[in-house]
Amino acid sequence: MSSIAEQIAELTRGADEILPEDGLAAKLKLGRPLVVKAGFDPTAPDLHIGHTVLINKMRQFQQLGHEVVFLIGDFTGMIGDPSGKNSTRPPLSPEDVRANAETYEAQIYKILDKDRTRIEFNSTWMGRMDAAGLIKLAARHTVARMLERDDFSKRYRGGRSISIHEFLYPLVQGYDSVELKADVELGGTDQKFNLLVGRQLQQDFGQEPQIVMTTPLLEGLDGVQKMSKSLDNYIGITEPPGEMFGKIMSISDDLMWRYFEVLSFRSLEDLAGLREAVDEGMNPRDAKFELGMEIVARFHSEADAEGARQEFIARFQQGAMPDEIPDRALDSQGGQLGLAHLLKGAGLVSSTSEAFRMIKQGAVRIDGERVEDRALQIEAGSTHIYQVGKRKFARVTLA
Amino acid sequence: MSSIAEQIAELTRGADEILPEDGLAAKLKLGRPLVVKAGFDPTAPDLHIGHTVLINKMRQFQQLGHEVVFLIGDFTGMIGDPSGKNSTRPPLSPEDVRANAETYEAQIYKILDKDRTRIEFNSTWMGRMDAAGLIKLAARHTVARMLERDDFSKRYRGGRSISIHEFLYPLVQGYDSVELKADVELGGTDQKFNLLVGRQLQQDFGQEPQIVMTTPLLEGLDGVQKMSKSLDNYIGITEPPGEMFGKIMSISDDLMWRYFEVLSFRSLEDLAGLREAVDEGMNPRDAKFELGMEIVARFHSEADAEGARQEFIARFQQGAMPDEIPDRALDSQGGQLGLAHLLKGAGLVSSTSEAFRMIKQGAVRIDGERVEDRALQIEAGSTHIYQVGKRKFARVTLA
Repeated sequence: MSSIAEQIAELTRGADEILPEDGLAAKLKLGRPLVVKAGFDPTAPDLHIGHTVLINKMRQFQQLGHEVVFLIGDFTGMIGDPSGKNSTRPPLSPEDVRANAETYEAQIYKILDKDRTRIEFNSTWMGRMDAAGLIKLAARHTVARMLERDDFSKRYRGGRSISIHEFLYPLVQGYDSVELKADVELGGTDQKFNLLVGRQLQQDFGQEPQIVMTTPLLEGLDGVQKMSKSLDNYIGITEPPGEMFGKIMSISDDLMWRYFEVLSFRSLEDLAGLREAVDEGMNPRDAKFELGMEIVARFHSEADAEGARQEFIARFQQGAMPDEIPDRALDSQGGQLGLAHLLKGAGLVSSTSEAFRMIKQGAVRIDGERVEDRALQIEAGSTHIYQVGKRKFARVTLA
Repeated sequence: MSSIAEQIAELTRGADEILPEDGLAAKLKLGRPLVVKAGFDPTAPDLHIGHTVLINKMRQFQQLGHEVVFLIGDFTGMIGDPSGKNSTRPPLSPEDVRANAETYEAQIYKILDKDRTRIEFNSTWMGRMDAAGLIKLAARHTVARMLERDDFSKRYRGGRSISIHEFLYPLVQGYDSVELKADVELGGTDQKFNLLVGRQLQQDFGQEPQIVMTTPLLEGLDGVQKMSKSLDNYIGITEPPGEMFGKIMSISDDLMWRYFEVLSFRSLEDLAGLREAVDEGMNPRDAKFELGMEIVARFHSEADAEGARQEFIARFQQGAMPDEIPDRALDSQGGQLGLAHLLKGAGLVSSTSEAFRMIKQGAVRIDGERVEDRALQIEAGSTHIYQVGKRKFARVTLA
C-alpha cells in the first residue's frame, strides 16, 4: 500500500464531500483493507460515463488494496413501487435481477478488477427480515429527520404525496452498511442523506460508523446540465467507438479538464503536466484526442481508439477544423428547433433560406456528418458541433 | 334478531360517531351476523368502568346476534418501544401476553357472553408477515395523511420527535381489520384516525370497508376530566362492592344520567321512565342507588350490591343525608390541599381551627367514613362527599 497521505490525495481526487472530514485518514490508519460499499439500482444497468465517476472511485480504493463491494439493491427492486403510482417500475423477478447483475458485470469489469470485486445482493439479508425486524429498524429514525431530506421536504411542502414506504427505503439502504460492516460508503451527491442514515444505524448497532464519500454528478456534454439519458447529453459506455470519440471531441475545453479529473486514470501529476503543455501552446484539441482515446480504449480497445481518432480526423477533413470552436447557447423555447433556424441563430448563416440552400448543397455537417434532411429538428438539451462550408464552425448547446 | 330500526336505536345509544353515517344500516341489511372488532392493548388489562363503555357496546352487538372479536394487539406489544424512549414499556414475552389475556377474560366475561366471544391475537398474522409485506402495507398510506393525526401533528409542529415505527403501528392495526374481514370496528374517540386507516386498507385489499363506531371517553367521578387512573377519578372493576357503590353515590345527578346511558344495561325506554319519575318528585338519590346496585351486581353479585347499599345507608346514619348535596369546586393550586383548608373553602366550617376541633371530636366524615388524621391531605382530581356534624354536607371536587 501507498502512504496514507498518498492514498488520501488519490482517493479524494474529484470527490465532492467526505464526512466526517478527517474520518478517512483515521480509517486508513487502521492498516487493514477497508470494506468500501457502493449501492446500485438493480433496474437500470445501462450505464453512461457519468455513472463511472463512482466506479472509478471504487477502482482507486481497489488499486490501493481495499475491498470493494458492489451492492445490488435488489430487495426493494423486487418489491417495485407498491403504491402503484409509478407504473413504469414493475417489480423485478429474481431472473430479472440475475440478468441485470450480469449486464452490470459486463460493464463494470471494464473498470474494476473482477477478481477483487465482491458482488452482493441485499435480498440476502433483507429477504430474511420479518415485519418485527423492520419495525425495530424504523424506530431508529424520526419522521422529522427523514423530512429533512431535500426531496422529501420539497414534496411535503409542495403538497405532493410521499408514501410511508419511501421512509423505509433509506433505512434498508442504511442497514445494508450494518450487514456489510462497511468502512466507507460511496455514492452520488444526491445520495448523501441516505449514506448518513447508514452511519447512524451502524452506531445504533454498536459499529464504528462508515465514512461517507460523495462523488459529483457529472456534467453532460453541454457542460451545464447533469449527464442523463433523458436530456440526451450523455455518452453510453456501450456506444460504438466512433460515437464515443466524437462526443468527447464535442465538449468544451473547460469540460475536458473536468472530465480528465474524474474520468481519466492518469495520475494527477501527469494531468498537471498536460495542462501546462496546453498553457504553453499545445493545441487543446490534441489533449482532447488523448482523453477520447483513453475513454474509447477503456470500453473497447486500443485499436478501436486509434481507429476512432483516424475516422474523426478524416470526417473533419484533416486541417479544416479550427483550433478554437466558438460556443453558442440557443433557446429552443419548445423542446426542439429546426436546423435552419439554429444555424441562423448561431450566426453560421445570414438567413434561413441561406441555410436551406447550404443544406441542399451538402455543405452542412453536424459533428462532422453531412446533413441531408433540410427539415431536421434539433432536440433541446443537445450539444453538437455545427459546420457550414469549410470554415464556419460553432459548438451549439440548445436549451 | 330485532328489526333494523330497533338494532340501530340500541347500537347507536351513547355512541360518539358512526362513519359513514348511513353505513350501519347498510351493514345490518346484509342480514347475517356482522364481524365486530375491538382492539385492546395487551399491556394494561386492569380495567376501570370507563373502559367498559366500549365493552358494553360489544355486548349490545353480541346480544343482537353479531360476532364480536376481542382483539389483543400483542404483536406490537411484544416489540415494545424499540426507540428506547419509553423505558416503562418493555417488550412483553409470550407468557406475559397469555397472562394478561387471562386477566382480560376474567374481567370482560362479567359483561360479554363467553361462548359468543372470539378472542384473537394479531401476532397470529403479523408474526408471519415479512419485511417486504410490511413495506407493501406502508406504501398504502402517505406521510401527509399520517401527520394529520391529531397527536402526530401536534408533536411534529411542537418539534417533539416521532419515530418512524409509530407510523407503522396504525397500519398494523388497520391490517388487523383486513385479516378479520371486520364489518364494524369499535374504539374510543381517540382511536378514530386508526379505525379509519382500517377502512382504507380494507378497500385497498378489495374488501367492503368496515363501519367505524367510536364510543366516548367516560367522564370521571368529578364529571369534568376523563376517567383515568392517574387522576384518581375512576372506579376499577375489581374494586370491592362498598367502594364501588360509594364512588357511584358520590357523583352528581347530571353525571348519573350520563352513566346510566353508557353503563346501564337497562333499556332506553326504562331509563326514560326513571327520569320522568325523578322529574315528578322521586329522590334522585334513589335513582343513584339503582345505578350503583346494577354496577356492583355486574362486577360482584346481587347480594354484594344489596349489602353495599345497606352499608352505605348505615354509614350515613339513615335519614341524616340530605336529598340535595351542594356541589363545590376548589382549586388545590399545588396537587393537594389539607382537609382543614378544604372544609373551610367548602363553607362547612368557619375557620381551620374549627375544622381541627371537629376532626378531633370525630365529627368529620368523607364519603361517610370518619376521619381521624387532622393533617390529612386531599389529592387534586378527586371528588368526595364531606360531612361536618350531622347536617352539613358538600360534594367537593378538588381541581
